[in-house]
Amino acid sequence: MEENEALAILDQMRIEIDELLEVLIEEKSKIFGEVATISGSVLLAGGKRLRPIMVLLAYEMAGGENLEEVMPLALAFELIHTATLVHDDINDQADTRRNKATIHSQEGEAKAIIAGDWLFVQGFGLGGRYRGEVVDVMSNCCAKIASSEFHQLNHVMDLTTSPEDYLEVVKGKTAGPFSAGCEGAVMVAGKPKNQSDAMANFGMELGVAFQLVDDLLDIKGDDNMGKPRGSDVHEGKMTLPLIHALTLLHSEERARLGEILSDFKDEYFDELIELLQRSDSLSYAEILIENHLERALSYLDVFEDSQAKELMRFIVSKLSDR
Amino acid sequence: MEENEALAILDQMRIEIDELLEVLIEEKSKIFGEVATISGSVLLAGGKRLRPIMVLLAYEMAGGENLEEVMPLALAFELIHTATLVHDDINDQADTRRNKATIHSQEGEAKAIIAGDWLFVQGFGLGGRYRGEVVDVMSNCCAKIASSEFHQLNHVMDLTTSPEDYLEVVKGKTAGPFSAGCEGAVMVAGKPKNQSDAMANFGMELGVAFQLVDDLLDIKGDDNMGKPRGSDVHEGKMTLPLIHALTLLHSEERARLGEILSDFKDEYFDELIELLQRSDSLSYAEILIENHLERALSYLDVFEDSQAKELMRFIVSKLSDR
Repeated sequence: MEENEALAILDQMRIEIDELLEVLIEEKSKIFGEVATISGSVLLAGGKRLRPIMVLLAYEMAGGENLEEVMPLALAFELIHTATLVHDDINDQADTRRNKATIHSQEGEAKAIIAGDWLFVQGFGLGGRYRGEVVDVMSNCCAKIASSEFHQLNHVMDLTTSPEDYLEVVKGKTAGPFSAGCEGAVMVAGKPKNQSDAMANFGMELGVAFQLVDDLLDIKGDDNMGKPRGSDVHEGKMTLPLIHALTLLHSEERARLGEILSDFKDEYFDELIELLQRSDSLSYAEILIENHLERALSYLDVFEDSQAKELMRFIVSKLSDR
Repeated sequence: MEENEALAILDQMRIEIDELLEVLIEEKSKIFGEVATISGSVLLAGGKRLRPIMVLLAYEMAGGENLEEVMPLALAFELIHTATLVHDDINDQADTRRNKATIHSQEGEAKAIIAGDWLFVQGFGLGGRYRGEVVDVMSNCCAKIASSEFHQLNHVMDLTTSPEDYLEVVKGKTAGPFSAGCEGAVMVAGKPKNQSDAMANFGMELGVAFQLVDDLLDIKGDDNMGKPRGSDVHEGKMTLPLIHALTLLHSEERARLGEILSDFKDEYFDELIELLQRSDSLSYAEILIENHLERALSYLDVFEDSQAKELMRFIVSKLSDR
């Protein structure tokens, strides 16, 4: 498939998802008023809709033929994702998200907490339509998001955070939802465990790569992030390049990196990047990304060739170009 | 049934629910660690377990014969109730709940938000096992909790809050979950709509009465509340006795009441109660409570006599003695 063709199909999927989300918020706003419109303003502020698109593609790859059957699950994962963003932004005291003011900065914390709850409820309302084992995958994934956020909070500004700590947080918080969405989609398509397991593993590997890319972009800067460069560093979040550099650097360089990270200011950016280059930490993260993406692709082998599979492979290839 | 017998049976039900919740938290703590233990500490800090008990009784009243079938729903409503308490306590900046330090005051707001989310997820994980229409009742109820909390926030310190505003908040936030739990239980028992509707109405009426009793106790003080007397007044929450007095009192008395409420201090309590008595607002609330409880009882008529029905009537009668 040509790149342009793939991009066009994915874009069409995104537009359809956007339209369904718009209709959902419009209908819910009639019933629930302000909480629905405010929550909706974040939900509808854009975003790549990567999670729901992957749910749809996973379903099609597994031979599912009625997209309407899996669509509520796809939307559920986007709603839950947005719910976690709203609550995260409170905890991170972030002022902007997707280039818009965050709910708590605009409406106050109380409304932001409740708006996040409302989005969770909508997600679970949609996901709760499926049979017990699909619901279990979803609720287990959400519970792990919470436990890994605890883990992450416990390591804020902790310069001794290990790569294992990092991976546990990333697997729970970022990769878990990718994995659960893909796994649930295969279950909805009625396919056996070896296929849903393969898709779960695919989602997990892709999700880890996704987070590593995000970590790099936070350091290098990216206009499409919708939040300021260095947000993670300012918040004391221990991303892999930092953990790697803290492990490898010696004596004064290690001490200086610790100093910089403990009270980060934008004017330290050049120095930070120099230190990270000295320990080859950015290249290390780049290699890891490729490894995870390669492993992700290998899990797709159990599925027959299809347009959906080509599109999923295309998503993988675009991730390494980000 | 003798009072002592009824109390003994209800107490036994409470103990069984407590045990199941303890097992749940113990098992989940092995998987999810700190977020489960911290959330569990609030969940297991006591409480009357009125919501799950009513779910079980409603199921039995509707002829349900396998309590295991409805137990996940009963626990789900207790988990969701506790989730809303954790998030409410952040928004109300409450230091204690059930006579224990609240999560946010002990562990910080970030962990409290996530702990509440985790409890929501556990509740939905259990409730999501049921068929679509039961899930809809539950998710609709939770979405209404959120919208009525928005409504309530918009009326904090608003001395012109109407009884209609009050009722909308109470129906969504307090009575709605009673109603949805009872309604869902009848659905799980496989009974027709006239019975699930009747039980929904019963729960709604009982829930409104429950909140009115709570409003009175907040003003009069009650050692069993687990939170300080006058919490609502301090937080600027417009409870019915206050709304009624603000409507009925004239000139200086009305002005003085407004003054007191706008910057409430504990030393104003005697004066507040005197003003509320002058407008007969406490008696008015007491009469409303009896009316709602009477209406609640009338909805039970469609159900055959049973021990469960006697116990439900007993709960109604105890509520008016609180």
